[in-house]
Amino acid sequence: MTIRTIENRSCVAFGIKDVRHVDQPLAYSPEDQVLVRVSRGGICGSDIHYYQHARAGMSILKNPLVLGHEFIGVIEAVPQGSQLKIGQRVAVNPSQPCNRCALCLEGKQNVCRSMKFMGSAQFNPHVNGGFCEHVAVTEQQCVPYGDHAKDSVMVFAEPLAVAIHAVHQAGVLVGKKVLVTGSGPIGCLVMAAARNAGATEVVATDMSPRCRELAVEMGADYAIDPTDEVATTLWGENGGYFDVCFEASGAPAAIASTATFTRPKGTVVQLGMGHATVEMPLGLLLVKEVKLVGSFRFVDEFATSVRWLESGRVNPLPLLSAEFRHDQVVEALEMAGDKSRAAKVQLVFA
Amino acid sequence: MTIRTIENRSCVAFGIKDVRHVDQPLAYSPEDQVLVRVSRGGICGSDIHYYQHARAGMSILKNPLVLGHEFIGVIEAVPQGSQLKIGQRVAVNPSQPCNRCALCLEGKQNVCRSMKFMGSAQFNPHVNGGFCEHVAVTEQQCVPYGDHAKDSVMVFAEPLAVAIHAVHQAGVLVGKKVLVTGSGPIGCLVMAAARNAGATEVVATDMSPRCRELAVEMGADYAIDPTDEVATTLWGENGGYFDVCFEASGAPAAIASTATFTRPKGTVVQLGMGHATVEMPLGLLLVKEVKLVGSFRFVDEFATSVRWLESGRVNPLPLLSAEFRHDQVVEALEMAGDKSRAAKVQLVFA
Amino acid sequence: MTIRTIENRSCVAFGIKDVRHVDQPLAYSPEDQVLVRVSRGGICGSDIHYYQHARAGMSILKNPLVLGHEFIGVIEAVPQGSQLKIGQRVAVNPSQPCNRCALCLEGKQNVCRSMKFMGSAQFNPHVNGGFCEHVAVTEQQCVPYGDHAKDSVMVFAEPLAVAIHAVHQAGVLVGKKVLVTGSGPIGCLVMAAARNAGATEVVATDMSPRCRELAVEMGADYAIDPTDEVATTLWGENGGYFDVCFEASGAPAAIASTATFTRPKGTVVQLGMGHATVEMPLGLLLVKEVKLVGSFRFVDEFATSVRWLESGRVNPLPLLSAEFRHDQVVEALEMAGDKSRAAKVQLVFA
Amino acid sequence: MTIRTIENRSCVAFGIKDVRHVDQPLAYSPEDQVLVRVSRGGICGSDIHYYQHARAGMSILKNPLVLGHEFIGVIEAVPQGSQLKIGQRVAVNPSQPCNRCALCLEGKQNVCRSMKFMGSAQFNPHVNGGFCEHVAVTEQQCVPYGDHAKDSVMVFAEPLAVAIHAVHQAGVLVGKKVLVTGSGPIGCLVMAAARNAGATEVVATDMSPRCRELAVEMGADYAIDPTDEVATTLWGENGGYFDVCFEASGAPAAIASTATFTRPKGTVVQLGMGHATVEMPLGLLLVKEVKLVGSFRFVDEFATSVRWLESGRVNPLPLLSAEFRHDQVVEALEMAGDKSRAAKVQLVFA
Repeated sequence: MTIRTIENRSCVAFGIKDVRHVDQPLAYSPEDQVLVRVSRGGICGSDIHYYQHARAGMSILKNPLVLGHEFIGVIEAVPQGSQLKIGQRVAVNPSQPCNRCALCLEGKQNVCRSMKFMGSAQFNPHVNGGFCEHVAVTEQQCVPYGDHAKDSVMVFAEPLAVAIHAVHQAGVLVGKKVLVTGSGPIGCLVMAAARNAGATEVVATDMSPRCRELAVEMGADYAIDPTDEVATTLWGENGGYFDVCFEASGAPAAIASTATFTRPKGTVVQLGMGHATVEMPLGLLLVKEVKLVGSFRFVDEFATSVRWLESGRVNPLPLLSAEFRHDQVVEALEMAGDKSRAAKVQLVFA
Repeated sequence: MTIRTIENRSCVAFGIKDVRHVDQPLAYSPEDQVLVRVSRGGICGSDIHYYQHARAGMSILKNPLVLGHEFIGVIEAVPQGSQLKIGQRVAVNPSQPCNRCALCLEGKQNVCRSMKFMGSAQFNPHVNGGFCEHVAVTEQQCVPYGDHAKDSVMVFAEPLAVAIHAVHQAGVLVGKKVLVTGSGPIGCLVMAAARNAGATEVVATDMSPRCRELAVEMGADYAIDPTDEVATTLWGENGGYFDVCFEASGAPAAIASTATFTRPKGTVVQLGMGHATVEMPLGLLLVKEVKLVGSFRFVDEFATSVRWLESGRVNPLPLLSAEFRHDQVVEALEMAGDKSRAAKVQLVFA
Repeated sequence: MTIRTIENRSCVAFGIKDVRHVDQPLAYSPEDQVLVRVSRGGICGSDIHYYQHARAGMSILKNPLVLGHEFIGVIEAVPQGSQLKIGQRVAVNPSQPCNRCALCLEGKQNVCRSMKFMGSAQFNPHVNGGFCEHVAVTEQQCVPYGDHAKDSVMVFAEPLAVAIHAVHQAGVLVGKKVLVTGSGPIGCLVMAAARNAGATEVVATDMSPRCRELAVEMGADYAIDPTDEVATTLWGENGGYFDVCFEASGAPAAIASTATFTRPKGTVVQLGMGHATVEMPLGLLLVKEVKLVGSFRFVDEFATSVRWLESGRVNPLPLLSAEFRHDQVVEALEMAGDKSRAAKVQLVFA
Repeated sequence: MTIRTIENRSCVAFGIKDVRHVDQPLAYSPEDQVLVRVSRGGICGSDIHYYQHARAGMSILKNPLVLGHEFIGVIEAVPQGSQLKIGQRVAVNPSQPCNRCALCLEGKQNVCRSMKFMGSAQFNPHVNGGFCEHVAVTEQQCVPYGDHAKDSVMVFAEPLAVAIHAVHQAGVLVGKKVLVTGSGPIGCLVMAAARNAGATEVVATDMSPRCRELAVEMGADYAIDPTDEVATTLWGENGGYFDVCFEASGAPAAIASTATFTRPKGTVVQLGMGHATVEMPLGLLLVKEVKLVGSFRFVDEFATSVRWLESGRVNPLPLLSAEFRHDQVVEALEMAGDKSRAAKVQLVFA
């Protein structure tokens, strides 16, 4: 097997508040791998966590890590016999399940315990991400899209896939009343996805007026401050108003409130990760038989996401707060980390 | 409408540690209601709570209440045109949903918000129960069974219905590995029901050796002390061993442990009610996409329960610890409340 | 109970090709029923069948029948205590399940065996429909909508409810590839509903070029002549292209083709009713484990339909071929029966 | 890669009525494959079809084929690092999906289009079966079981897996009323599996009195001649008696009857394969919204089957009609093909 090594300017996390734009040479196998020239990346919460705390949840930075799991690019080289074409624009799925374990062979790749998710320090050696000039990936990771689609739109493929997966976790939404608690980028994409999955009423909450505005732009019928007791008291009457709640804030008070706002036998999908443990109103969930289910990453929703963005079915651009050149990654991370100013911040590579 | 009033020796809760065997006249309508002479009752946790604390969960005793929602009897009078026959033995379903609200008309009668569950102080006026000589009920509440079946067996119809409903909440169990945490009467009946629903492996936990023995008699392959770290550590390896956990203890430590012991994308069914709120490992539930769902009472599982007991498919008698005459209700409640001595205690009326 | 009788100009079927616009007095109970002044009706296939053959499927005309189960109107009188207001515009749900049988109490009202569906000769006495000046209905049948919505749009509430129910029968459609065989009004509404339920690709077939054009207007990505072997051969390759097929033609060839075009473990929803029995490729369905499920009327999808039309989420107007005054019912039925000219024909009452 | 070739007395189909017991040398790779000494095999319908017609359904014999996909054996050699032990008794899963295609990676291995099912002429070159002294298989195909279990029982692992898969196709059976039409070996194993999955009532049909007796021995509550109109008319009343019908005969009359006997919104699982196309009462299926789903082979039900047989949960021995030495394969096939005498016939190899 031939291994080729190329120069690769990359956004690398070395430690707390220590992300540098350096050359991190890329070794790749031209016979097996697809070489993608990265055009654009989106900064996600875990990138910000690595920058601010050198960790994201349970994943602790032990070695330098190329950040980024939201990115798109252009095919630069393909192995012989590939169906992909040089010059083709592609969204890159950062998910690399083993596809051999029992969970993968049941179609549950998102919970594969040998998952090599790009841009993550979960395992050691870490799996480098896509905030760099080139990535070497498998053909299966590349989802092509048409030339008419904008880079700034298509780079939402990964977070929209997360949102569509959350919608799948909720089951059928056609005709349902839906609440989304937390109107950050993921919450807002869940609103768009829920609307596109047939929800009849989509309501958002957030304590920030700016986020509530974004929520309405992204598909919520209306958005409420969760400390507004008049509105929320109504949601708790007669056993609960909403068929489905998506909890996208991770805030303990919001988590607890979903048990009240969800109708008996309804569903709560938990997306927001904050604290490892949370005080939960289990008695209420029990007597109402409300189903609580987590949503973690995605499986085949990545391909759906690319199609929905490409066709304009979901327009994520209200969420785009700023764009930076890739050598300005530190400025970009600083801005992305300031929730009073930014929803989604993007890095431009080419 | 004619109303007839008859004398009725009853087990009535008046307050804390104040249950008396007194005459509580029964007013019933011969044109609409079925009169059942009660033969036997089973004491449940909520009966014990009313006796010990004058409340059961959120249901607070405000007026005298005839206890008992587990009971069977013999038909003594029927309205004209009834399909039931005088002398017929029946298990009486204590569940009286309104059958008119939106939830009832979706088949979700167990979470009907106007439910008049017998022997419960949830609403005021309270709904009297079946620990008395006669009850007046609807035809739909009476499920007949054959003369060969024993009273001591058939009076388990209600708690076994609770267990079968929990099994329904878990979805298909055929071929599954199942853990039941807590080996009291409900936990043990869940083991029997899970086995009868096709579970391949059924494992029980309890801190009491006596309860662990009962668990094995009732269908567990084996039973473990949950403080035995060797066994339980194994259950947490490779992401979790069990496809489905039924949590029947209500103990916070047991509740938290189910997130560890359940396989990714598995299911936890919560039956045990202890504290209103519990510290939950929500992060772990989320990344494993474990589904958590409560189980509350039952819907049409009552009829299934009667058939399974009548046919001998489930033998509940290992759970029967003692029988008392109905005028010894206080002694019966005292014994039933002593978990070191008793699983299920029954009252004999006729 | 007071019964009031009012004059009521009605479109009544007396026999084959014998529909007359006559006075059919309406007896109603002001204390229990809502009086609705009908504003508009839509002619459905079964109305045409009663007109042409004095029967619709198994339902044979034995007595005069007021036609029509697609209609809307304005509230003219309400019982005391009603939540409805005089002057309120409402879509009327023609479905009147018994809400007492076992099927109803499981939430399966559409298959209630005592269903009194308006405008149907299924039972004797027949249940009159809504092609008349006034109807007397229950409060539950009336679904209010806003004044901004057009009558010509809102009268699609019933057929769109049929389409949304079909979508529910298919399960989750988010990200799915969908084929609809047959592009009549119901087929086209299924396309719109499937798109709104998250289908990523919606393809239509019909032998009529006019219907294929309508299909594209109503939400199909493209529409194909099913006799075009090049296109359809591709759909059968690699085990089948579509995740879900909705069969809305009732044509035996189309029915058989769905087994070929559907992916292994996919779903076929059968809507089209033609012959009572059909030669089916059962062997192919079996080895591919394709699920076949019928779709019959609707349950709570009627309310969803009203919301989707009112909000403009579904625009049914491309399907509207012509409007007639209610005394021109014969001309309207003639035109509606000519599939080369008409998709949906409406009757204007007020 | 080393390839070793060993002598292997085998039951080989050469053409119509031409099955011979000959040496068919086995080439195997000791570094990758497990060598199993076959102890016993069970003759299935497809083996009989290859013998009688040189084809089984769409699979046509083009080259000599070692028959047999129901077989068990003893481990004789394992690759280095294997978890299996020499001398271990195993049931061999004849299913060899590719585990790489989209269907496999969704957990739908039974409909993998590159499936190499042992003992099948579906593809060319054919995939040899297990009616021979030795087979070389993968570690994943071998399911160990304890020494206390009988060979004559354990060799039912494959057909019982087919039955358990059918039960999975039906969804939850707890408390359900089940009909199985056709009481051959597969039908009878479905009865046992349905009973073990929680069905409350299991009824069988067959025109042969001998098969009806077997049905009752295998778990049916009672068995009926389907030409007995009194019994079957009752099953069609009030919309249909059974929640679930398993059609295991393949007879067109039986297939059609399931639409009548199944309750509205019930399920028909089709197992029996007879004719490629069948005249179906589609109109009735539609208005009752009965779901029809095929059942083809199995996925992970093979492991469940081994556990259920090993533990005595299912006793298949009433189905065992005769045993033959492997060199008497022609006599065995002749007897197995005579449905008036035989249910299951086994071949003894070691």
